[in-house]
Amino acid sequence: MTVVAEATTAAPTAVVGMVGGGQLAQMTQQAAIALGIELHVLSSRASDPAVQAGARHLAGSPDHLDDLLALAKESDVVTFDHENVPNEYLRKLVEAGHLVRPAPSAKLLAQDKSVARRVLGEAGFVVPNFVEVAAGDSAAIKRFAAVHGWPVMVKAPSGGYDGRGVREVAGAGDLADTDGLLASGRWLLEEKVAIATELAVLVARRPGGETVVYPVVETIQRGGICHELVMPARVPASVADEATALAVSIADRIDATGILAVELFLTVHGELVVNELAARPHNSGHATIDAAATSQFENHLRAVLDWPLGAPTLLVPAAATVNLLGPPVPIDLPRRARAALEDPTVHLHLYGKSYAPGRKLGHVTALADGADDALAAARAAAATLSAS
Amino acid sequence: MTVVAEATTAAPTAVVGMVGGGQLAQMTQQAAIALGIELHVLSSRASDPAVQAGARHLAGSPDHLDDLLALAKESDVVTFDHENVPNEYLRKLVEAGHLVRPAPSAKLLAQDKSVARRVLGEAGFVVPNFVEVAAGDSAAIKRFAAVHGWPVMVKAPSGGYDGRGVREVAGAGDLADTDGLLASGRWLLEEKVAIATELAVLVARRPGGETVVYPVVETIQRGGICHELVMPARVPASVADEATALAVSIADRIDATGILAVELFLTVHGELVVNELAARPHNSGHATIDAAATSQFENHLRAVLDWPLGAPTLLVPAAATVNLLGPPVPIDLPRRARAALEDPTVHLHLYGKSYAPGRKLGHVTALADGADDALAAARAAAATLSAS
Repeated sequence: MTVVAEATTAAPTAVVGMVGGGQLAQMTQQAAIALGIELHVLSSRASDPAVQAGARHLAGSPDHLDDLLALAKESDVVTFDHENVPNEYLRKLVEAGHLVRPAPSAKLLAQDKSVARRVLGEAGFVVPNFVEVAAGDSAAIKRFAAVHGWPVMVKAPSGGYDGRGVREVAGAGDLADTDGLLASGRWLLEEKVAIATELAVLVARRPGGETVVYPVVETIQRGGICHELVMPARVPASVADEATALAVSIADRIDATGILAVELFLTVHGELVVNELAARPHNSGHATIDAAATSQFENHLRAVLDWPLGAPTLLVPAAATVNLLGPPVPIDLPRRARAALEDPTVHLHLYGKSYAPGRKLGHVTALADGADDALAAARAAAATLSAS
Repeated sequence: MTVVAEATTAAPTAVVGMVGGGQLAQMTQQAAIALGIELHVLSSRASDPAVQAGARHLAGSPDHLDDLLALAKESDVVTFDHENVPNEYLRKLVEAGHLVRPAPSAKLLAQDKSVARRVLGEAGFVVPNFVEVAAGDSAAIKRFAAVHGWPVMVKAPSGGYDGRGVREVAGAGDLADTDGLLASGRWLLEEKVAIATELAVLVARRPGGETVVYPVVETIQRGGICHELVMPARVPASVADEATALAVSIADRIDATGILAVELFLTVHGELVVNELAARPHNSGHATIDAAATSQFENHLRAVLDWPLGAPTLLVPAAATVNLLGPPVPIDLPRRARAALEDPTVHLHLYGKSYAPGRKLGHVTALADGADDALAAARAAAATLSAS
C-alpha cells in the first residue's frame, strides 16, 4: 500500500520541555495532547512512562548541563516532573536566555529543605523549629533536643523523597549510629511536630501572578510515603481557608510558576505548619484529573506557558485517591485492572511501569457524595489491584 | 551520556486495534494511556492525529484485507474510529478467529443507511418513510413524492458524512439533474421529516449486554455538519427518557458492542424518529471528556474489551461543545488557542491537523450551570479561535 506523505500535521501550539519522564510527565502528556502542545521529556530511558505515552524523548540526564541545554533549545519553556536537577544548571539555562518555569530561585525551595525552612521562616511563615548542621557534628542532636525535646527528626535537605533521607531519633539512647548518619553533607535537625492531619494545597500560578487554587487535599502517609488522598480534606472550613491563603501567600512570596504544592501539617493544637514544597505537578493532586474541571497537569502546562488558567473547581462532592504500590509478590495487573473497575465510580491510572515491590505502579481515584465513601471505594479497588 | 536500556515498561493490559487514526482515535489514545492499553491504529498517514498522540501506527488502508488482518493479528480486539471499511472484510476477520467489536452485523447498520432503515423499520422502530432505488431510476423520485409529498431526500446509503451524499429535491421542477445524481449505485429516497430538534444518545454496551447510557445530547447542525452540542438536551424529561429507552433498545436489538450513537429526530409533532447510527465513538459525545465521570472514549475501550463500564454521569448541570471548523482564511491557532482559554470554564481540544477551510480542527467544550450559558461560552471561545 501507499503511505501518503501529505503534511497534515499542524504546528504545535507550543513546545514544552520537561525534565523527567515519569508518571507526572506521563499525565502531563495526556493533557498536552488536547492543547496541541508538544511535550519533550529529558529522561534516560525510552521505557519511561511519558515516552511510552507519546511524549518526544530526549535521551539524557538532568545532571548534565549539555542535556539540559539541548532540551531548552528545542522548547519554548523548560519545566519539571521532579526536583532532582542541579539548581546552578537551571541558572545557567536562564543566563543562556531560556525560559525556566518555575524559576531557579523558586525551584530551590522545593529542592532544598534547609533553604525552604530558612526563607519561609524568615518571611514569617510558621515552620518547624530546625537547625542546620554540618557533617560530623552529631553532638548537635543532643544540643537540639536540650532545647526542643525528643524526638529529633534528622533530614537530608535534598534528594530525599517518599520517606527516604529522613530518620527519627527517639532519644539519647538512640544516638549510637548517628555518626554514620551525619557522616557527610549538610543536615537538618527538626522538632517532631504533633500532627493531627497532613494537608496539601495545589496552586497554579502564571508568571504575572494570576493564580487558581485547588480544594485542600488531605494526605494520608505510611512510612513517609503518601498512600491516600482525600479531596476536599476533612477539616473545618476555617482551616481549609487558612491553608489556602497560606499556600497562595507562599506562591506569591517565592514567585512560583506552574503548579506549586504546599505540604502542611495541621497540628493537634490546630496550627498550620509548613512542611515541604514541590514546584511541579504533585502526587497529592491526582484526583484533579477525574474530579476537577481542569486537571493540575493541564493547569501546570497553561501556567508555565503563561496561558490563562482553567477552573480548579471540584465537580463532585468528594474524591479519594489510593496509590498503587507494587506488593511483595508480582501481580497479574491486566487481570486485576479489569476487576478493580467493577465499581463504576472508580478511575484507573496505570503508569506503564513493570512490577517491582514498593514501586508506584499507578493509582485509583473514586468519586462519591462523601469523603468516606470515596475513600472506601478507592481502597477496595486498590486492594483488588494488589491482590495476587 | 548513557541510555539505560533497562526493561521497565509493563506489559499492556490489552492491545486494541483501531481502524482509522483520526481525532476519534486520538481521543481514544488519551483514554488508553491511563488504562495501560496499547492502542494500534490502522491508517495511511503517520501524520494522523492518533499517531501524533502516541498510538502505535500500522500503515495501511481499511480497503485492504491484508492490512486489516495485520491489525487483527497484533490486537486483542479490532474496533473503529469510522465506518468506511468493507463489511465483508470484517466478516473475514471474524472467520479467521479475530474479535471484531462491534460485530460486522451491527457495524453494517452504521455503514449502510438502507440496511439500517430496513432492519430497524421491520423491528418496529419509527424510521422516516423511505424506498430503495436502483441506478438510473430517476422516475422513482416522482413516484415517491406522489405518495409522501415533496421535498424528497435523496441519499447515498453509504460513504456519506457531514452532509455529503445527501440531496434535497424540492419539487418536480428541481428534477433536471437527478439523472446524474442517480447514475450509479443504489439510492435511498426519503420523506423530509419536520424536525423540531435533533438528538443523539450514546450507549456503551459490553458483549454480554451490560450497558450504560449518557445523557441525551442535542445536536445543532448546519449544512448537514454537526456544529454544536448541548448536554443534556433541552427537551422535556419524558422525551429524554423515551430517547434513552429507544437507544438502549436498538443497541440490544442489533447486539452492539462499544459505543453506539443513535441519532434521532424529534419531530414538530413530538415524535422520535430514528435517523442514523454510528457504531464507534461519536462527535456528539465530545462533552463527555470534560463533563462526564467517564468519557465515551474510555467506555468504548472498556466495552470492546468486555471490561466493566464506568459511570456515564454528567458531573455538571450543563455542557456545550462547538466544533472548530477551518475558517475560509488561515488562522494563527497557537495565538488563538491562548485567547480562547481566557474563559476558565472552556476546555480546548485540538486534533493536531493542519489548517484547511472546513476541516474539523478541534472543538471546545464549556461547562456551566445552564445549557444556554454553556452554549454561549463555547460559541464565544470558538469564535475567538476562528478569528483571523
